[in-house]
Order: sequence, then C-alpha cells, then structure tokens
Amino acid sequence: MPQDIYEKIMMLAKRRGFIYPSFEIYGGVAGFYDYGPLGAQLKNNIENLWRHYFVLKDKCVEINTPTITLYEVLKASGHVDEFTDLTVDCKKCKQSYKVEDIIDKDTSVEEAVKKNKIKCPVCGAVLKNAYPVNLMFSTKIGIGNSRDAFLRPETAQGIFTDFHLLYRYAREKLPLGVVQIGRGYRNEVSPRQGIIRLREFSMAEAEVFFDPENKVHPEFDKVKNKELYLFDNKKEMKISLEKAVKNRVINNQALAYYMYLTQEFLLSAGVDPKKFRFRKHAADELAHYATECWDAELFSERFGWIECVGIADRSAYDLSSHIEATETDMYALRKYDKPKTVEIKKIIPKMDKLGPLFKNKAGEIKKLLEKMEVKNGDRISVRIDGKSVVIPEDCYEIKVVKEKQVGEKFVPHVIEPSFGIDRILYCILEHNYVETRKKDEEYRLLKLHPFIAPIKVGVFPLVNDEKLIKIAKEIDDTLRNSDVITYYDEGGTIGRRYARMDEIGTPFCITVDYDTLNDKKVTIRYRDTTKQIRVKIEKISKNVLESIRNS
Amino acid sequence: MPQDIYEKIMMLAKRRGFIYPSFEIYGGVAGFYDYGPLGAQLKNNIENLWRHYFVLKDKCVEINTPTITLYEVLKASGHVDEFTDLTVDCKKCKQSYKVEDIIDKDTSVEEAVKKNKIKCPVCGAVLKNAYPVNLMFSTKIGIGNSRDAFLRPETAQGIFTDFHLLYRYAREKLPLGVVQIGRGYRNEVSPRQGIIRLREFSMAEAEVFFDPENKVHPEFDKVKNKELYLFDNKKEMKISLEKAVKNRVINNQALAYYMYLTQEFLLSAGVDPKKFRFRKHAADELAHYATECWDAELFSERFGWIECVGIADRSAYDLSSHIEATETDMYALRKYDKPKTVEIKKIIPKMDKLGPLFKNKAGEIKKLLEKMEVKNGDRISVRIDGKSVVIPEDCYEIKVVKEKQVGEKFVPHVIEPSFGIDRILYCILEHNYVETRKKDEEYRLLKLHPFIAPIKVGVFPLVNDEKLIKIAKEIDDTLRNSDVITYYDEGGTIGRRYARMDEIGTPFCITVDYDTLNDKKVTIRYRDTTKQIRVKIEKISKNVLESIRNS
Repeated sequence: MPQDIYEKIMMLAKRRGFIYPSFEIYGGVAGFYDYGPLGAQLKNNIENLWRHYFVLKDKCVEINTPTITLYEVLKASGHVDEFTDLTVDCKKCKQSYKVEDIIDKDTSVEEAVKKNKIKCPVCGAVLKNAYPVNLMFSTKIGIGNSRDAFLRPETAQGIFTDFHLLYRYAREKLPLGVVQIGRGYRNEVSPRQGIIRLREFSMAEAEVFFDPENKVHPEFDKVKNKELYLFDNKKEMKISLEKAVKNRVINNQALAYYMYLTQEFLLSAGVDPKKFRFRKHAADELAHYATECWDAELFSERFGWIECVGIADRSAYDLSSHIEATETDMYALRKYDKPKTVEIKKIIPKMDKLGPLFKNKAGEIKKLLEKMEVKNGDRISVRIDGKSVVIPEDCYEIKVVKEKQVGEKFVPHVIEPSFGIDRILYCILEHNYVETRKKDEEYRLLKLHPFIAPIKVGVFPLVNDEKLIKIAKEIDDTLRNSDVITYYDEGGTIGRRYARMDEIGTPFCITVDYDTLNDKKVTIRYRDTTKQIRVKIEKISKNVLESIRNS
Repeated sequence: MPQDIYEKIMMLAKRRGFIYPSFEIYGGVAGFYDYGPLGAQLKNNIENLWRHYFVLKDKCVEINTPTITLYEVLKASGHVDEFTDLTVDCKKCKQSYKVEDIIDKDTSVEEAVKKNKIKCPVCGAVLKNAYPVNLMFSTKIGIGNSRDAFLRPETAQGIFTDFHLLYRYAREKLPLGVVQIGRGYRNEVSPRQGIIRLREFSMAEAEVFFDPENKVHPEFDKVKNKELYLFDNKKEMKISLEKAVKNRVINNQALAYYMYLTQEFLLSAGVDPKKFRFRKHAADELAHYATECWDAELFSERFGWIECVGIADRSAYDLSSHIEATETDMYALRKYDKPKTVEIKKIIPKMDKLGPLFKNKAGEIKKLLEKMEVKNGDRISVRIDGKSVVIPEDCYEIKVVKEKQVGEKFVPHVIEPSFGIDRILYCILEHNYVETRKKDEEYRLLKLHPFIAPIKVGVFPLVNDEKLIKIAKEIDDTLRNSDVITYYDEGGTIGRRYARMDEIGTPFCITVDYDTLNDKKVTIRYRDTTKQIRVKIEKISKNVLESIRNS
C-alpha cells in the first residue's frame, strides 16, 4: 500500500532523528512526541525566528512563567468552566470519545446530540448522555493543606496575571506587547491525529495590550499596502491591510497588523504560500474569551487545512476577569492633555446600619464601599467571600466630591496571536519535502530555509587521509565556535554524504580535498542548486553566516 | 532594619522586571516565580551560553521531551520509590514539614528521628511518626481508562528512554552526549528559601554515554593542565585535571572533563571565582542512581554554599533499569578488531517440564529463555508479570554453540552534569551586584557579562529633538535587526538614563547628539569603565556584536 505523505515524513522523522513517539519502550501514549536531535534544533530555530519577528522587530517583551497554574487563576479566566469537550462513553467498548471526532463532518455537535446521531466508531452502538469534560490536566501543590492546580492550557494567563507589573515595566505606555514561549497542555479525550493533536505542546503567544479607543499599531502605515491571503468561509481573497480594515473585513488595525506579522513569519519560516491562508472564525466557533478570531491555516495533504495560529481579539475579557476576582488595580491610564477637576460620586457607608445587618463582615464591606466610585443609579453590591452581596440603600449615602484627575482609567484590550509550534514544524516538513530520483534511486530532500535548518553545514574530508581530516576538523571547530551547528562526516562516498545531508535539509556542505592543501580553499556545495564554489578557508565562517542571514 | 543582599536583589528584581512572585494577585504560592522581561532574557542568555559550551563546543546533541512522564518510566527509574523527603506533621498547627528543614544543622535526619529530636518550628511540640513523601507532582492522562503520570523530576529520563534511537542517530559511536533544557518539578513539602527552592524550575542536563571500560573524553588531553577548585569536605584545593584523576581524587577522566566544562561555563557566565567550588558528595548524600557526585557550589551571603550543578556518575543504573523493565535492546556494541567466533551457552527449554509447571505462562517463559545468554553457573530466572521467577534446572538444558560476533554488547555508563538554571541565575545577580555612591546618592550596578546581559544597548537621543530622535530610532532598528536587544529611552537626563541601564546590567549605551548631525558619529559609553568613545553610525552593529563576543 502506498504511504501517504504523513507516513513518509514521520518515518523519515523517526529514522533520521527529528521526531520519536514518547515512552515508546513502555508502549507509548497518544498525544506525546519527543523531538530528537534534529527536531529539537528545528524547533529552537523556529522559536528563534519567531522571536526575531515578535521580540526584536515588534519590540514585544518576553516573560516566562510556571506551567503549573493555581485553580483560582483558571477559575477566573473561565477555563475551569469553559475549557471542555463534549464527550460520550461507549459502555460496550469501554472507550470515551470526543463527540466532534466521531460525528459526520456536515453535522454540528449540537445537532448530533439533539438528534441522537452519535455512533460508536468501533461497535456502531448509538451513544447517548454526552457530557462536558474539562481538558486541563490537574494536580495538587504541596501535601496536607494542598492547593488545587492545573497544567496551563495556554501561556497567556501568566501574562495577564502580571499585567500591572508589566505595565509599570513599560513605564505605563500602550500598546504593550508581551510574549511567552513554552509548554501548553490539553488532556484530549482520545487524540487520533499524531503530532497534529498533542496533549503536551509548545506554543508561542503574544498578548498585545491596546487602548480600546486606539487599536492602531505604530508600524501599520509602513505595511498597509501589503496583502493578506484571507478566506471568509465563502471565498478566498488577496487584500491589502488598509482595504481589509477600511471594508471591515478585519475589525481593526491592530488585528490586521498582527495577521501581517504572522504571515511574514510563516512565509519566512518556509511555509508554502499556496498552502497558507487566514480563515475567519464563525460566531459559534469563537473561544469563550474572543470577540473576533482569524486562524492562520496551513494545508496538509493528510489533514487538510490545519489551524496553526489563532489571532484573536480577546477584548478586555481576561484583565476584567482578574480585576473582578482579585480587585487588583490592573487598569491603564489614558492621560488628559492637562489635569481635569471632575465630580465623582463617592459612597459614605453608615456603620449603624451595616453593623447589625452584616455582623463581622461589616468592616470589610465598609472598606470596599469607600473605595468604590458610583457610575450610575444602579444598586450597589460588593464581593464578600467570592459572592456578590447587594447593599440596601439605607446603609449608605452618596456624596458628590470634586477630584483632580490626570487621566481616566480603563481596562486595556488584548490582541493575541497564538502559535502552535509543533503543527507549524510538521507543516514546514511537509511543505519542504521533495521526492525525486537520482541514478534510478529514490532521493529525498528537505528544502528547509537555512535559518531554520537543524544542521547548517556538513563538513567532509574528501577521503580518509589524516591531512584532510585535520583541516576538516579545524573548519568544523571554527564554525561551531561561531555558533553554527555542523555535522562532521568521514563515512562513505561523497555522494552518499551529500544525500544524508540533503535528506535532513542541510543547506551547505563543505569538502576538503587535496587541492585544499595547496590553495587553502574548500568546496562549498549548495543543497538546492547543487552548485559548487571554491572558497578560502579563512572566509568560510563569514560566508556561511551571511548565506544563512541573506537567503 | 538593614536589608540583606537577597532582599535587596529580590526588590531590585521585582521593581525592574527580572523576577516576580507567581500568582501574586491570588495570594501567591511558595516555590513559584515568574521571570519578567529582563529575567526571561537573562535566562535565555544563560541557556544559550550553556548551549555554546555543551552543544556547540562539546558536540552533544539536544533533544526535547514531554514534562508529563508515564508512571512506568519513573517506577523503573526508581523515582516512585526513592524520590522522597522524610516528613512530619504537627497536628496542632496543621502543618507538614520536611524533617531536614526543621532539625539542628549538626543533627542527621536519622539521628533526629531515632532520638525524637524533631520539634515543630511554630509551637515547639515534639513531632513523631516521620514518613516519606514522594516529591513528584502527579496527574492523569486521559479520562476513563486514564493512565497515571507525573511531572518529570528531571529531564534525564526522556533521554534514557530514547537511548537506542539516539545511539542509532550517532551511528553507534561513543562517547555520545545528549542534552535537554527544560522544566523540572519537585513538589516540596514546604519550600522556604525563595527562588533557591522552587517547585517548578528550569534545568539543563547532559547525559553523556561512555563505554565503562573507556571513560575518557577525546578533548581531555587539551585541558588536562587546567585547574579545578575542589573541596573534599575537609579542605579546599586547586588541582589540575590530570593530577586529580591520577590521584583518584576524581574517579575518571570523563567526570573530570565535565567538571572542567562546568567551571568554564560558570566562570564565563559571570560567577565570582572566589565564590565557586566543587564539593564531593559523601556516600550517604548520593542520590539513588549515583556512584560518585561532585556539586558545583556557588556562595551566597544569605544562603551560604548553594548546590547549583550536580555532576554525577550514574554508571549503568538508568539504562539497566529500563532494559530490565522493558527488555528493549538498549545496549551498545564494543566492536572487535575483527569478527570473533565465540562459544556461548544457550538455553534449550523443555516444554514437557515447563508446561505442567507454568501453565499458560510456559510459552512466554520459553521465548524468554531462548533469548537469554548464560553468563555463569548461576540459577536461571526470568521476569513474568513484573516478578522474577526462578526456573528449576530440570526445565532446560544448556548447550554450548559457536557464534560469529562482530563485538560484544554492554550497557553504557552515564556521566551527568545537571544544572539548576534558576539558582545559577540568582547567584549571578548576587555576584555581580555592586552598590556604590554617586553625587551622594546610592548607586546600583549589575556588572553582568555582555553575553548574558538582558539588554545589550541603551539608545538615547541627547535631547528631545526630532532630528536626533529620528537617528536614534534608526540605530535602534538596525541593532534589533541584527538580533541585539536594545532599550530606547528619551526620558529624563542622560545621567538618569545611564543609571537606569547600569542598574539592570546594560553594558553599552549609545547617545545621539548634535555633533552626530555633522560627523555621523555617536557616543558609546561603557558601563564598567564609564569610558566614552565616538564611533561612526555605520560601524555600530559590528562594534557592538564584537564587544559582546570578545568581552
């Protein structure tokens, strides 16, 4: 049976050291993969290229927070209640399934549940009583008085819970972009798509905080004429950023700018432009925190269009949730041109009424009331022990006072480009995998961009002669000393050694031959053109570093 | 009350954006810290410097495996049974304590337990019934038929369980070094040393596989005259690698070589040589897997000597355990100069005896026996359902057969340098923190090595003039385009801006002034000398990159 491209790539990946199934010697578990020597380098390089775009170019700051996350954080963020998959059990087969995975593609989950259209994929029994399953891995911190915690479903919450500190770091200026690269976790019910659906994955997320009245990016004008590939669930279009925002295809400049930056990153990482598009989420697809979302989708012959990046407008959802849960001042300040004297309504609590009514909580309520600012004629309530308590009108007075203010407070909005590194890595392998024939044999190449190729240079002595070996090893050391990852190889014919390097995507090979002993030059051979040039040994490092940077 | 250095550094770290307590808005939890914008860069830079030594220079390969680890892996590795802390509860205070934390420094844990010398640090009650608590965070994979798992206590097991694949990647050559950088977890009972004792931490580990008959490193001769700072629990000494191995102070060349590489890395990362030493583990300190271990210790004014790196000889412990648990061929081959015909003793099982005795297990036992090779006259046993079963002598014959062998199989030994990145990061801050006075005010500097400094260059226009700002921003963009992290600042006096950069360890500041408009030169100011030179704008990137590399 002919293999499909996924099988071919995963076989090459295992054979050559890109990707191994985790815990294979213990039978393995779906949803976990290891990156071998080449895969880990490829992943590092993709992440560093991402940093080049988001940290260096876009000037976001990077932070790094724990993967273990307190229950309270994820309760406030909505993940405890909303981060679920509808699941059914087959009692006969003793298996659980995610409803979405086992229904017809044309049927919605709601319809399938309502009309009893869920069947066991193994025994065919009609499955009922679908129930939501939370997808977070849970654990406990400490023993005895332990605290509930989860493995983070996204790196984003670590950024949101530090917002007030980060805003101070940025000297209270917006927009403020904050990124995090690290592990995310999703305890899938029964993952069945190999490396595309992982239970532990690597993500790179940017949370960019904006003034909601000013969702514009300072660099927008420089790129407004660039074009995006969009798919609005009906037709595909190529449209300039400016036009997309003007025509309300994309809601605001900030969102459009980060879609553009995402496109730049993906294309420069080696994604095939013909297998790339942005698709807009339909209203019923949106995550619980999003008001608008565009996915960057990459096409795979096996899986079809794969969501690899989500660029969401999370509005003020997360910061508001954490402010509400903790009463921390996580507001930003919109400065007035000059200070204003404004009238504000303050609450004057009456302890003689509060005391009898709220007993030992009265003091706490008094403090909360004094901190409040009354926005309108609504009834007044405070949060006590996690519950909202309405305060009867006779327990307070409202007094109008004048205050000098330098600006007004607001909750920033967030644009979030969120990247699934593992899926991008797989798609880059698929898009750059080339099969051809050489001397009547199958010949495989990975045309990886030099910046992301795991090994940059193969270094070979032409034959097994101590004199050539010595020079080759010196060149190898020199390159490694310039932080260039090399592969030194003295085994087999030169053709065989080139083939090994081509198959793992090494862009350059350097051969030391007998002429080298006289002219101090070596041959550099280029993977994609197979062209060869002679270069002075002393210029190799510079030549290679420039080739990586400029290609 | 005067602050100690830890308090000073943690305050600076929080104020300037190096380190924040995690989940602080939810009350925080001991043992978790966030790296802010400067801390995350510092950590990335330390890890990349580590890669320079271990991946580029020492040619180890890097891999990347999940943090969630199957129960079976950690059962075999001994962590389920051995990775524990002896713990006591105080019923009055409803608190649990690690025995080691609350007994006198001069008392051993064994003695304290035996002689009832454990007292509650809060109420003073004598605490009894100490019990071992496993320190791994546990979780479950999947729902229903879920599988038990832990968060990894070390990255090493991900390397060991892939050894057979990695050995193939390395084309079956030893020594083979494999590294992993990532999170490790340790569910401390009650951590009370701030960032020094984390429940989630970052580690960088190398597992270097050796032929036990040849524990030598190919680069040893080049460095054998270099000196190590050793402390054997009695006296400190400075001794050459060669002498240390010859005199059996250090057991073998391989261990000595990795101690040297560790020392090189730490000193180049900015560790104070006077606050650095290697200390040998006493026999009763050794982890369950180690036969010899040297800690690289860094001195802290608050904490004393801190274990920051452990360089252990794990012998064949881990691979043997996984081979025994899974029967995977994880052996290496020691090739003969030419193939040998050898006599080996094979077992010929007798089914007529095995059948009645072992019933439905007889077939499985037969297969296991046929695969075995008899080493000596010992009794024969096999593992069935996780238990060792002795096979009676009348159930088999032993037959001597001749086989052609190209080499002999063996289980490689492992030398493991294991680095605690967070502790190293903290010690680097402490060792490089300088307090001085300037114009009668307190003045703080972090004399971080340019390679690990989070911000490399401050870029300033001398005054708020559009012409100067334009040039300064262009310089900022050019540097960032060369992957140099900068901090653009136009606020406050130049002195104030220098002070901000000095306090966070920025090695270089560039100022654009009115002369720049004529001579196209800018001023570069060096943090440690406060010297200033004028440099052509077009040469800045090159100048900065060389200064980082060569300093």
